[in-house]
Amino acid sequence: MFSAQTYQDRRSVLQTNVAGGVLLFLGNIENPVNFEHNPYYFRQDSTYLYYFGIQEPRIAAIIDIDENKTIVFGDELSIDDIVWMGRQETLKDKCLKSGVQETLPYAELSQYLSKVQNSGRKVHYLPPYQSSNKILLSDILGIKIAELQPSVEMIKAIVKQRSIKEAQEIVQIEQAVNVSNEMHLLAMRVARPDVKEYEVANAIQYLAANKECQMSYPPIVTINGGILHNHYRLNTLKEGDLFLNDSGAETSMGYAGDLTRTFPVSKTFTTKQKEMYEIVLNAFNNAQRLLKPGVRFKDIHLKASQHLVEGLVDLGLMKGNPEDAVKNHAHTLFFQCGLGHMMGLDVHDMEDLGEQYIGYTEEDPKDTKTFGLKSLRLGKSLESGFVVTVEPGIYMIPELIDIWQAENKNADFINYDKVYEYRNFGGIRVEDDFLITDDGYRLLGDGLIKTVEEIENYRAEHLA
Amino acid sequence: MFSAQTYQDRRSVLQTNVAGGVLLFLGNIENPVNFEHNPYYFRQDSTYLYYFGIQEPRIAAIIDIDENKTIVFGDELSIDDIVWMGRQETLKDKCLKSGVQETLPYAELSQYLSKVQNSGRKVHYLPPYQSSNKILLSDILGIKIAELQPSVEMIKAIVKQRSIKEAQEIVQIEQAVNVSNEMHLLAMRVARPDVKEYEVANAIQYLAANKECQMSYPPIVTINGGILHNHYRLNTLKEGDLFLNDSGAETSMGYAGDLTRTFPVSKTFTTKQKEMYEIVLNAFNNAQRLLKPGVRFKDIHLKASQHLVEGLVDLGLMKGNPEDAVKNHAHTLFFQCGLGHMMGLDVHDMEDLGEQYIGYTEEDPKDTKTFGLKSLRLGKSLESGFVVTVEPGIYMIPELIDIWQAENKNADFINYDKVYEYRNFGGIRVEDDFLITDDGYRLLGDGLIKTVEEIENYRAEHLA
Repeated sequence: MFSAQTYQDRRSVLQTNVAGGVLLFLGNIENPVNFEHNPYYFRQDSTYLYYFGIQEPRIAAIIDIDENKTIVFGDELSIDDIVWMGRQETLKDKCLKSGVQETLPYAELSQYLSKVQNSGRKVHYLPPYQSSNKILLSDILGIKIAELQPSVEMIKAIVKQRSIKEAQEIVQIEQAVNVSNEMHLLAMRVARPDVKEYEVANAIQYLAANKECQMSYPPIVTINGGILHNHYRLNTLKEGDLFLNDSGAETSMGYAGDLTRTFPVSKTFTTKQKEMYEIVLNAFNNAQRLLKPGVRFKDIHLKASQHLVEGLVDLGLMKGNPEDAVKNHAHTLFFQCGLGHMMGLDVHDMEDLGEQYIGYTEEDPKDTKTFGLKSLRLGKSLESGFVVTVEPGIYMIPELIDIWQAENKNADFINYDKVYEYRNFGGIRVEDDFLITDDGYRLLGDGLIKTVEEIENYRAEHLA
Repeated sequence: MFSAQTYQDRRSVLQTNVAGGVLLFLGNIENPVNFEHNPYYFRQDSTYLYYFGIQEPRIAAIIDIDENKTIVFGDELSIDDIVWMGRQETLKDKCLKSGVQETLPYAELSQYLSKVQNSGRKVHYLPPYQSSNKILLSDILGIKIAELQPSVEMIKAIVKQRSIKEAQEIVQIEQAVNVSNEMHLLAMRVARPDVKEYEVANAIQYLAANKECQMSYPPIVTINGGILHNHYRLNTLKEGDLFLNDSGAETSMGYAGDLTRTFPVSKTFTTKQKEMYEIVLNAFNNAQRLLKPGVRFKDIHLKASQHLVEGLVDLGLMKGNPEDAVKNHAHTLFFQCGLGHMMGLDVHDMEDLGEQYIGYTEEDPKDTKTFGLKSLRLGKSLESGFVVTVEPGIYMIPELIDIWQAENKNADFINYDKVYEYRNFGGIRVEDDFLITDDGYRLLGDGLIKTVEEIENYRAEHLA
């Protein structure tokens, strides 16, 4: 946990940014795997972590703005619990570490909120993502699940605050990134012909676990990098494959890292792989240099797309004017997704609160229709204190190529004959995490090799 | 998956054991960790696995007994899905492997069941344990969550069938037990002074993961074995500690293993540890020999309790007649829980369906009041084909000792002065998995060392 003062300060700021009423925070429960008492590992809700820091299932909290008080709702262990689970720090003590003096039994939450509602005051709550919290909210507020109305005012105030990372949060994120760096180096040592994808995944998870880290998301470790959301891990690596590793650690306090590297299963890249890799890396380097306060991330995304097109034109897969190609979204045959996203206590930071509030503004909302842009999670202008990922890529998706070719789509910009040669090429992505500083950006963590030469040298050294 | 015939046969048997109506099966969803699209690993519902074998989130199925038809409800991948997730085996093909010819879109489940209800026919469903399925059931049946009424007829028919394991299920369980055996041997090699508890947990999970296994439950790996539900793992092992490892693997088809071993962190047991270990092991060996069809597991539990008491009398912690001590529940100061439980597709097999149906009968229901017996999951007579765990233990729980001593509880049977010397002794448990055969029992898996001599020799060999 951070200091009690930290949580108190955060709550004070939040309180001043919402006009009135009661702010409700629901912690997460332990989710059952195959029966109630066989749970997945516990992960506290990130907003709860941010304002209270208490890693305990089945607790809630309120900040009563009108009456200026904060209460944590939860239950102390009974003597029965202690017999089975051992003596533990009391909830009261945990709350004191969070700067909260008042605790009430969990069962009293409902009653407390009823009183608030009956007195005509507003209960602000966030969009629930765990079904248990949907049921709980519906029960305690007396509203049908489908009719729950999260508080936009509360969401906006939280997003405003959590978007700007404190120095101590950056320390946590860098710790996550550095463990992620080690995971990626290990993958580069482990991945070789005849190894299974899941063996690489297991090795990096084992490394992270021994540093008291969870995965910040299910790792994508695959020889089919052209499949964007790929969690199939039973393939066997073989000479000539490209291996894509998109994985990151989460510290015990909940902060995420998120990195991607792509490298050959053989000791060296083939010429074709190297050429394509250089295109992605060039787009990455140029995008990185554009990071600074006031620049729209959407513009960096489009600029990166243009750099990808320029490379693909040189290689003969695309043709015509790169700027026009991007305007016509022709690049989305190869780069179907977004350049990056916010990162913090969640790998897609605050995604549960609604992408429109995290990544966009009311004046400049998300393009939810256009293929490509509809997958860009972050579009708005950068601010000092944001933490973002930059992750351009090129993905050959046979099914998508077939559809476009059948429609002769963007034929002015795409050489379908040449594309055919790359049909089963797979995918390449390079991703790092950055802090936006007052005058630009800072790479988070100690840095991870990424040039063709660095990767080939590292692997030559370790695959001997 | 097993053969299509297997699933067809299982469904046919089930159909004949329920008088009429429609049997509803809900698969599990992917549970979100900290936002909707960041899920825990997927685990299919065990009953769904048993009757359909399809490992896919967000599917359901019905068996319409009256009309003798079986339908799986689920959605094929859209072209958008394929672009992001790659081409995969169709749901239709998966259903064929399960012997199901008919599939309908997931959204039609609600409509189908409305028709059934409107025609006055009964929809049988099981107790939902995942909140998402509580919401789903409530929505599609138009019943409040708190008022859902699972079908006892369906539960009983399923329990009857799943309790008797098929030969091919035993093969799966033995596979899980054998991986669990390896996990335990690894723990005995890894655990030593200065190692952290979580490092042992991570090592055994890594081993299992490389054999394509999950944990069948969160491992208990602890130097505080006296805490029964212990998931704290930050302690450092030191000379003189006892290390308790309660962990098991789950095969990719969902079958569980569940083993416990307790061993010294030093190379050898102390005299005190050895004496206590022999008491537990003796109770274990005697309990094992009593396993056979027709014997009430509750009686074996009580007999094992008596064996524990005999040992504790010899050691001076207890006194008086052991049989009387057990009748007065005096043993529950040291053995607070049950001797074992059913195991199969769940480590506590079918616990989601209700313990009263799995472990007990209407004529001989569970004792839900008495400390000790209220924690015995299995009480009924054994049958050939049951798979059960046997896991006696002795646990020193300072908080419980204090309460009993303050009340002078069972003072005729307990030497509180002597118990005080063992106050911080910790806990010992020994656990194996058994198949009940026609004439007795068979240890599942290839066997795992458990005598003092075997454990000390193994560790002497590997800690050099």
